[in-house]
Amino acid sequence: MEKLTLIKVGGKIVEEDATLCKLLDDFASISGRKLLVHGGGRSATRLAARLGIESQMVNGRRITDAETLKVVTMVYGGLVNKGIVAGLQARGVNALGLTGADMDVIRSVKRPVQDVDYGFVGDVRQVDAGLLGDLIHRGIVPVMAPLTHDGQGHILNTNADTIAGETAKALATRFDVTLVYCFEKRGVLRDEQDDSSVIPQITPDEFQRLVADGTIQGGMIPKLENAFDALRAGVSQVIITSAAALQTETGTCIKR
Amino acid sequence: MEKLTLIKVGGKIVEEDATLCKLLDDFASISGRKLLVHGGGRSATRLAARLGIESQMVNGRRITDAETLKVVTMVYGGLVNKGIVAGLQARGVNALGLTGADMDVIRSVKRPVQDVDYGFVGDVRQVDAGLLGDLIHRGIVPVMAPLTHDGQGHILNTNADTIAGETAKALATRFDVTLVYCFEKRGVLRDEQDDSSVIPQITPDEFQRLVADGTIQGGMIPKLENAFDALRAGVSQVIITSAAALQTETGTCIKR
Repeated sequence: MEKLTLIKVGGKIVEEDATLCKLLDDFASISGRKLLVHGGGRSATRLAARLGIESQMVNGRRITDAETLKVVTMVYGGLVNKGIVAGLQARGVNALGLTGADMDVIRSVKRPVQDVDYGFVGDVRQVDAGLLGDLIHRGIVPVMAPLTHDGQGHILNTNADTIAGETAKALATRFDVTLVYCFEKRGVLRDEQDDSSVIPQITPDEFQRLVADGTIQGGMIPKLENAFDALRAGVSQVIITSAAALQTETGTCIKR
Repeated sequence: MEKLTLIKVGGKIVEEDATLCKLLDDFASISGRKLLVHGGGRSATRLAARLGIESQMVNGRRITDAETLKVVTMVYGGLVNKGIVAGLQARGVNALGLTGADMDVIRSVKRPVQDVDYGFVGDVRQVDAGLLGDLIHRGIVPVMAPLTHDGQGHILNTNADTIAGETAKALATRFDVTLVYCFEKRGVLRDEQDDSSVIPQITPDEFQRLVADGTIQGGMIPKLENAFDALRAGVSQVIITSAAALQTETGTCIKR
């Protein structure tokens, strides 16, 4: 199977000109088939503030009322996505910006109200990798915004990590997929205060051990659980690293 | 050759819920291959106003400074485009939202400054109908926002009529294309005061006559010149009608 590198970058990287340029350069120089999933939360918060719309976050997730949905649709699907697409085209990468609504790639359901009403937030139900895979085989590089649709005419705000994970799983039937999660640090750290303490490789057994002894904690636990979940679903490897280190091929590699 | 209906609708139609719903219903019920080009100027003006950005128009064209470019990228490429895509998906139409940057479909050059500096406005140079045509053959329905790119990383604001015309010409090598321009009236009127005075058909000879006797004047002249230009480039027919009349197959038909 052909190799495919699927990279997820957070908002911060793509929202500042200097880091965005470096990311686009690094991404353009990755050989072979590839796909980019991006965030854009800081720009959304900034636009919302300028429009007098309050940004409400619960557990790191944005409460998305009707006005906020318009903001994220504009920022993620328009400003950030098309900026990346144009920037990649200038670097010879034939990018295609997508939300989950485009070509019906990702369907979701509006998250049911339990303790919290997240509003127009979608939980992914189905990724259609058929046409997407064909386009990748033809040299197209999808650039995916963190938006999906419910099949009933509604765009839904959707977590970019989830979009990356679910898309990686769906494409794993057709490609040898490496899923790369970029975040602030260069990988999973043995000592949170020491940026050089990156753990180079984690297996399921080691993960259990590192959680038990308190080395891995907090938000890193669900991140790694998602990584193992992707591996079980056929993704070849998951790498956790920083966008700045993309070219160095360092970071934490999660293996079956 | 397979038939393709390429419809251009202005901003007003897609910016109000009731007219948008009707348009999407009408568009969904058109049989065969199809493509939609949309505007969005009123929403852009509204968002710009909320952000304290003044909308400056010259000869009906928006002066697009850096801040205004962000606004139109958000509104055309995000809010309006993704709203239409999700609405069509709900109606069983497998829509794909595109700007000219996506898959490098439309390249343009920044309009040179002559009497007026239009800012980040693009004049279309090249439409790549290859992959676009393949996707249409596979059942995808492109939904095109009035944005292009210059190949050097910049999105450019581009007239939707021009995008429709140039795309129709490029696709005419692969499809039997009917280009439909929707505007406020039900067609070209013999008497501007009488909405029922639609001229059913205009040939080049008749066009010359109608201009000479003053029946056709003002903004309708370049519109019709564009139509004849499209016909000379291989488009099968051009229809000028209103979005409300899309289903009735009435309007003015421009023939070679």
